[in-house]
Amino acid sequence: MPSRRELANAIRALSMDAVQKANSGHPGAPMGMADIAEVLWNDFFRHNPLNPKWDNRDRFVMSNGHGSMLVYSVLHLTGYDLPMEELKNFRQLHSQTPGHPEYGYAPGVETTTGPLGQGLANAVGMALAEKVLAARYNQPGYGIVDHFTYVFLGDGCLMEGISHEACSLAGTLGLGKLVCFYDDNGISIDGEVEGWFTDDTPARFEAYGWHVVRDVDGHDPAAVKAAIEQAQAETGKPSMICCKTVIGFGSPNKKGTAGIHGAALGDEEVAAARKALDWPHEPFEIPSDIRHGWDARSDGQVVEDAWRSLFERYREDYPALAAEYQRRMNAELPGDWEAICGELITKMDQAGEKMATRKASGKCLDELGHALPELIGGSADLSGSNNTQFKEAKTITAADPDGNYVFYGVREFAMSAMVSGLTLHGGFVPYAGTFLTFSDYARNAVRMSALMKVGSIYVYTHDSIGLGEDGPTHQSVEHLASLRLIPNMTLWRPCDTVETAVAWQDAVERRDGPTCMALSRQGLPYQPRSGETIGQIRRGGYVLSDSDGEPELILMGTGSEVALCVEAAEQLRQDGVKVRVVSMPSVCLFQRQERDYRRAVLPETVRARVAVEAGVTEGWHRWVGEDGVVVGLDQFGESAPADDVFRHFGFTVERVVEAARESLKNLNN
Amino acid sequence: MPSRRELANAIRALSMDAVQKANSGHPGAPMGMADIAEVLWNDFFRHNPLNPKWDNRDRFVMSNGHGSMLVYSVLHLTGYDLPMEELKNFRQLHSQTPGHPEYGYAPGVETTTGPLGQGLANAVGMALAEKVLAARYNQPGYGIVDHFTYVFLGDGCLMEGISHEACSLAGTLGLGKLVCFYDDNGISIDGEVEGWFTDDTPARFEAYGWHVVRDVDGHDPAAVKAAIEQAQAETGKPSMICCKTVIGFGSPNKKGTAGIHGAALGDEEVAAARKALDWPHEPFEIPSDIRHGWDARSDGQVVEDAWRSLFERYREDYPALAAEYQRRMNAELPGDWEAICGELITKMDQAGEKMATRKASGKCLDELGHALPELIGGSADLSGSNNTQFKEAKTITAADPDGNYVFYGVREFAMSAMVSGLTLHGGFVPYAGTFLTFSDYARNAVRMSALMKVGSIYVYTHDSIGLGEDGPTHQSVEHLASLRLIPNMTLWRPCDTVETAVAWQDAVERRDGPTCMALSRQGLPYQPRSGETIGQIRRGGYVLSDSDGEPELILMGTGSEVALCVEAAEQLRQDGVKVRVVSMPSVCLFQRQERDYRRAVLPETVRARVAVEAGVTEGWHRWVGEDGVVVGLDQFGESAPADDVFRHFGFTVERVVEAARESLKNLNN
Repeated sequence: MPSRRELANAIRALSMDAVQKANSGHPGAPMGMADIAEVLWNDFFRHNPLNPKWDNRDRFVMSNGHGSMLVYSVLHLTGYDLPMEELKNFRQLHSQTPGHPEYGYAPGVETTTGPLGQGLANAVGMALAEKVLAARYNQPGYGIVDHFTYVFLGDGCLMEGISHEACSLAGTLGLGKLVCFYDDNGISIDGEVEGWFTDDTPARFEAYGWHVVRDVDGHDPAAVKAAIEQAQAETGKPSMICCKTVIGFGSPNKKGTAGIHGAALGDEEVAAARKALDWPHEPFEIPSDIRHGWDARSDGQVVEDAWRSLFERYREDYPALAAEYQRRMNAELPGDWEAICGELITKMDQAGEKMATRKASGKCLDELGHALPELIGGSADLSGSNNTQFKEAKTITAADPDGNYVFYGVREFAMSAMVSGLTLHGGFVPYAGTFLTFSDYARNAVRMSALMKVGSIYVYTHDSIGLGEDGPTHQSVEHLASLRLIPNMTLWRPCDTVETAVAWQDAVERRDGPTCMALSRQGLPYQPRSGETIGQIRRGGYVLSDSDGEPELILMGTGSEVALCVEAAEQLRQDGVKVRVVSMPSVCLFQRQERDYRRAVLPETVRARVAVEAGVTEGWHRWVGEDGVVVGLDQFGESAPADDVFRHFGFTVERVVEAARESLKNLNN
Repeated sequence: MPSRRELANAIRALSMDAVQKANSGHPGAPMGMADIAEVLWNDFFRHNPLNPKWDNRDRFVMSNGHGSMLVYSVLHLTGYDLPMEELKNFRQLHSQTPGHPEYGYAPGVETTTGPLGQGLANAVGMALAEKVLAARYNQPGYGIVDHFTYVFLGDGCLMEGISHEACSLAGTLGLGKLVCFYDDNGISIDGEVEGWFTDDTPARFEAYGWHVVRDVDGHDPAAVKAAIEQAQAETGKPSMICCKTVIGFGSPNKKGTAGIHGAALGDEEVAAARKALDWPHEPFEIPSDIRHGWDARSDGQVVEDAWRSLFERYREDYPALAAEYQRRMNAELPGDWEAICGELITKMDQAGEKMATRKASGKCLDELGHALPELIGGSADLSGSNNTQFKEAKTITAADPDGNYVFYGVREFAMSAMVSGLTLHGGFVPYAGTFLTFSDYARNAVRMSALMKVGSIYVYTHDSIGLGEDGPTHQSVEHLASLRLIPNMTLWRPCDTVETAVAWQDAVERRDGPTCMALSRQGLPYQPRSGETIGQIRRGGYVLSDSDGEPELILMGTGSEVALCVEAAEQLRQDGVKVRVVSMPSVCLFQRQERDYRRAVLPETVRARVAVEAGVTEGWHRWVGEDGVVVGLDQFGESAPADDVFRHFGFTVERVVEAARESLKNLNN
């Protein structure tokens, strides 16, 4: 029977060998945290390597994602389908073992980490998911939803602002099954952190209302074990276990230095570490007793089977709850989903109201919130402005977590990463709101949801200079264009109530990437359309109104500027110009349509084109072509009533008509 | 003689009246913090309203910028050139009183605030500026640099992650002359904060090493005064004065509620507040005794005059220091600046080395750091990777602040906002480094520097998939395009050592907006050029190599992809194609050139064009036109050695040649 230290050394050896082979990577954290990992996995972690998607597994997040080799080592050793060949291919093209843990590459990786602090915030979202689902589905004797969320994190995570946002809120929400391990090794890339990081971290977390286990020797398994037991015993507060560790533990000459943080040890030092660790085995060789000591497959199957039996009994006693739970965890929408959306869109169309799209969005949420128990909303302290708090919304609190609305506070970054955590956990369709401009605060979390291909929904209201008096700090100018740049992003900017409803249907149905909704503060007129036309909205761009016969001019716009195009078209038509109006609520989706559809909407022969959007012109040139004109805003806004600002910057019917004439004139030159 | 409360009520009345007249704005914070403001300005604040730019003035930042009417009221009342007419025009087009305090609109506004938490981080930068300048210039008996930085902030600022980053570092740096007032009114937009903000804030700040003054009654002038005295007495730590206040104090029916945070009171409630405050005066009427009680002009002139006399004596005793100090505070570069840059560029050109541009940047900084005492660098824990720590860099610490390098820790957002604070304070040319992708973490601070038109410099290394093994979380794809979208931004992506040196000259000289430097991780070959060509680099785009006679094809690229264009051109030329290669190190600058220059570089007649950049294609279509081809990357990267990743995504000479042939073929179709 191998000792705990020997088991831990398997992580150390695999990590230093894989990094050495790639000649790239971060051996320091895996070697430093190996003993903690050994105790966590071998004594506590409830999972089934044979079914990495088992609903009720414990979640593990390595927020200090550069320590990816620890994750890969553990996954390999415990029996996940991650063969040694993949560890040998660490950081190589097409391997399952990229430099940082990437969601979707190796089984058992719960989220993509690397950008510091965000894994922690994802984990707060996962722990919240567990708490909310448990409150809804668990019944006396049936702990259907009952798992921990464990997080490893380092100094870098704790310096990042997002750690403040996420942990402050985790404290308020009383996420008692969130257990974090702070790898307090005193080293970051620039050297000894005491020069730039002097927080009293335990005191800081106590100030957030966390349960802090101080001064744990991260190389003493008994101490780690006792700390985890304490953490599990405290069910009302998240726990931070502060582990003193030595970075690169095992490397006799580099341990405890920044030199081992992010570079291969070198052959000589690898050899020296082998000696120091008394690990005589070849690179990537794991002796069978150690392999056996780690293998969690049979135990894991037992644990999952027990849960499955429990769940079968639960299904008998609570068939409706069980069915709903399973539907949610399988990410299936209710059977009547299509009908619900159809009715919603029809209702919007029939009402034909002038309305701010943020308000239209609120009305959609009233319906969706009723139909979808998996909907979980929230806002970064702008619930009223974002219209995110739907009619049947029930606030989630520490004491009463059976709800579907989170007051995130002014914490855009953590909120956005938590939304991804909720999505990744399963069981939820989450959305979160703020002003469009403050998507900037969360930008990397939004990017991460696109990279992970998860269906997070971001509700961004006050989407332009139409925000008015709050002025340029709050007025989005470059944000529509900038969010569209993120690969795999779908951004919607609906022009009226009907497009808003369609956008919501699309957002909820999308499971392979995030959606941003850019919504107006101000009222926008309803645009009448045929049923067929309504059906085309989901293509992202479509002919809203057309000329008799071939158009000679196309006016295209998004959101609040569609009405300008419509009015300008009327004027131009009175002058005999054959005008087509194209609404482009989602340039992202339009771009993904087949070429024939795109050309049908924007025929190559029609070269007089005007695009109108109250934002930077960049991005529109490709749609209007060289003879086209873009009416946009390539400077910051101004503080004034919205109408004044629009007029000041030339977002008027007159200007659009003038631009149309310019484009027609370009053709003749 | 009016009472303190009467003086404070002038702020309350002006704030509620201006918001009422605009029917837009935030009366709650100004009314709640009026008593604190009264004590601060009338008893402590050292400034001269007649010279808002006096170097040694105390700095004031309203981080809860929505309370702008407090600032405008105080500036007006103390005698700044901000007439009552401007207060009446609050939030109107072309007024000096935009919805949030905007730098450059009203005298005395030290920074633009509104996006929560950032004012606080700017202020940390200002306080650091003061501490560093004082260490360098003050001499026994000569406290030339000796002022406080005061900050008002609210719950929102404290919930934002940037407050953690900035305040943690402020504690480490021991910024003893930073004095903050926490407006602890228990209310944010969504209502009573206890539902989403339960931090023990005093304990949190003590954990950062701050001096905390707890439980101050923010409506008791004596308590506020005592607290400020305590804060000033503590010179080794920043101070947080925690003031319990009632939001909207004075409004009998709305005080203490979210209703008064961000909306006009309404005529009726304004009348009721007048009564409750015993303020019988008409809107915008300030009785002369109260006006007199606030007027700080003569005292301010006395204070400034005393400092000027001191400075004259200092100049006699320390002429070199005095001259350097004044040069720096006047934002003038040294007399030999042009020569220094000329030599640097020549040296780079003559050496002709293949080198990563991050390394070339480091070499530039070695020279600039020697020549410019105002240079102050730093990195978010990537000093070695960003090559930001120049040869003569001396680390700034709490105990020894006479330096020019800051270890910011893993705090991109606070770092970027602090850089703007350093710039706004005066006396510095600051830059700060991280990986390009992590510009996302700081995006809104970068935007704010563009909005404020300050010359902050951001050094972003590892600027593409060329980063290699760290993978997609760290590989920039959309970031070049995305940063270019920010109005008033200059982004440089140099292709070799020479362009890097020119970029640095441009960045240092730029005083009306920020500069981003996108620098490669990997080595890039030197491109030979004539002296005349070198002179064109600052135009942002220029002909790097040309065909004999009229070109038939243009290959353009930036940074690491210029070499691909050069190699592809060689191949194509061997096949008889007349190729021009255009290097576009700064698309932003190229765009700002006069049309004739742009057309000379990219003649309209040459329609076969290829643009190559290892990032999203968006933005390039306008430069290549409809017959052109963009070789870019519209998806996330992969973790693998850089060469493999470049090859995998088609950044090869072959692909560029192929694209060139496609474009030539387009012409013939």
